[in-house]
Amino acid sequence: MRTTVGWRADAGDTLRRVPLERRDLRADDVAVRVDYCGVCHTDLHALHGRDGRPLVPGHEFTGVVTEVGPGVTRFAAGDAVAVGNIVDSCGVCRMCLLGQENFCYEFPTLTYDGTDRHDGSTTLGGYSREYVVREGFAYPLPSGLDPAAAAPLLCAGITVWEPLRALGVGPGTRVAVAGLGGLGHLAVKFAVALGAETTVVSRTPDKAEDARRLGAHDLLVSTDEGQLAAARDRFDVLIDTIAVEHDLGPYLRLVAMDGTLSQVGYLGGIAVETMSLLAGRKKLSSAGSGGRAETAAMLEFCAEHGVTADIELVPSSKVNEALERLSRNDVRYRFVLDLSDLS
Amino acid sequence: MRTTVGWRADAGDTLRRVPLERRDLRADDVAVRVDYCGVCHTDLHALHGRDGRPLVPGHEFTGVVTEVGPGVTRFAAGDAVAVGNIVDSCGVCRMCLLGQENFCYEFPTLTYDGTDRHDGSTTLGGYSREYVVREGFAYPLPSGLDPAAAAPLLCAGITVWEPLRALGVGPGTRVAVAGLGGLGHLAVKFAVALGAETTVVSRTPDKAEDARRLGAHDLLVSTDEGQLAAARDRFDVLIDTIAVEHDLGPYLRLVAMDGTLSQVGYLGGIAVETMSLLAGRKKLSSAGSGGRAETAAMLEFCAEHGVTADIELVPSSKVNEALERLSRNDVRYRFVLDLSDLS
Repeated sequence: MRTTVGWRADAGDTLRRVPLERRDLRADDVAVRVDYCGVCHTDLHALHGRDGRPLVPGHEFTGVVTEVGPGVTRFAAGDAVAVGNIVDSCGVCRMCLLGQENFCYEFPTLTYDGTDRHDGSTTLGGYSREYVVREGFAYPLPSGLDPAAAAPLLCAGITVWEPLRALGVGPGTRVAVAGLGGLGHLAVKFAVALGAETTVVSRTPDKAEDARRLGAHDLLVSTDEGQLAAARDRFDVLIDTIAVEHDLGPYLRLVAMDGTLSQVGYLGGIAVETMSLLAGRKKLSSAGSGGRAETAAMLEFCAEHGVTADIELVPSSKVNEALERLSRNDVRYRFVLDLSDLS
Repeated sequence: MRTTVGWRADAGDTLRRVPLERRDLRADDVAVRVDYCGVCHTDLHALHGRDGRPLVPGHEFTGVVTEVGPGVTRFAAGDAVAVGNIVDSCGVCRMCLLGQENFCYEFPTLTYDGTDRHDGSTTLGGYSREYVVREGFAYPLPSGLDPAAAAPLLCAGITVWEPLRALGVGPGTRVAVAGLGGLGHLAVKFAVALGAETTVVSRTPDKAEDARRLGAHDLLVSTDEGQLAAARDRFDVLIDTIAVEHDLGPYLRLVAMDGTLSQVGYLGGIAVETMSLLAGRKKLSSAGSGGRAETAAMLEFCAEHGVTADIELVPSSKVNEALERLSRNDVRYRFVLDLSDLS
């Protein structure tokens, strides 16, 4: 086994710096020195939702390849890479063959708190100085992208990128983004870069300047009944990144006839009145994570259009504070841990 | 006022033959002798869901124009016409201007138990020998269509026609229709006539022969786990016509990546697990009724392709029996009342 250092929660929710083991490289593995790892809402859910078992979070990170297995063909030591929230899949089901490993019929292997499909071990995430991953689930990080600000692209980014692409967003599309957090601010940047007419939907007007700075063309205040009424049936696509359970009705009213509300921020049950969908043949969808093909395409697009996350970079020793602040939405817009303090 | 005869429920659920009043013709009204009126599930809901107020159901009927108001330009006495479940709308909102009067911002006037937007009276439906309607909400009945079998097109038909058209169903589309009742059997006929590869999803295999006769290419038995598993992610469009509350999960699993489940049979709240939508970026939509443009287009299509409903024609004096049998799904596939016994 290889040894490294990382941040692990054991009985309580506090992460502590501990030595960790990584597997010896298999033929198709690469070892990655993790430089930057984003702090995702999922990390909070995972910390609070487990039954006391040890957890090393982190599933959007960038770093440098330090060693490769004998069968690796795509990477060499020194290559800048990025890793997202899935690290393996069956490879042979219809979804894997379509390049949508995130929908693998046998369920993809999650980057942390997943089960390795070869040795049965529990995966440990990117809040760690080293990660070992199959080369097929590491992505070349384009040289133009800042590696710290690029880390959140691998989960927050791909989660909003896939529905925007699948729904054909481009010039002429009227896109709304509800919720301006880690996912939302990237959805705005993507939609703008894709050429769409882009509006931020926020509960308060104090996001107006940020919305403009991100490139949005308009801000709609969702607590203003008059503004909501005026925007009825206005958007072809609404990306709902709100991270807590909420009534979809008011947001569906903003969607144009035959348009789609894509719900990406909240995982759980959705209750919706048929009439909210019916009145305008509106569609409700959901999305999360992405396949290898679209992840690679997104990174290329980001390099071409200069899109990365707006981040607050903190030493990894501040991880507990970052998680606590994230739970209060006190971040614009994504914490990224600098893991160099683990060396 | 004009007088006619119809079937009305008062305190109880039993319909009784009573004299009814119709308004004198306004400038843009036509008087229609109602010959045939379909018996819709909505009629049952309306009968059971009201607080004892009088009700004359019926919102899919065909007949002949007997008289026209002075401003009527599209019809003359003797014309064969059809009327559906909406009979008026504001005419000036965005949806009305799009030809989607069914989504009128001021809510369309329903054919029965609605409120006339000019005189405030409660509308009385087509279980009646005469109906008075604005000419804009009567449709020419193409001469090739049997007027009895065409009546159900005006509600059951348009309700499944609109999502099929909006979702771009045509040659190459893989369509599934869940539930083979009034709506379902017309969805099958439409999908087949539109050139789609069409599959019926039914709880029992005993619908196989009917499915074939309707033109379906396959039958999938939804209680057969093996068949369901084999059909995972198979259909681009699934029209769910099941009339009672049910778990959408198993049906969403049949929908292909980026495909749509259109729920048309059940009005009420829908609960769905995000993961059911997420795993394959599937979309959920709903539909019901239709606008004037698509209703007219559907009737033309039906005339061209010889599509009408499979009906059981009964004298209107059997209306209570028909409703009772419909409540047990004992009809293949739509009761139509012959109202000539009211003359």
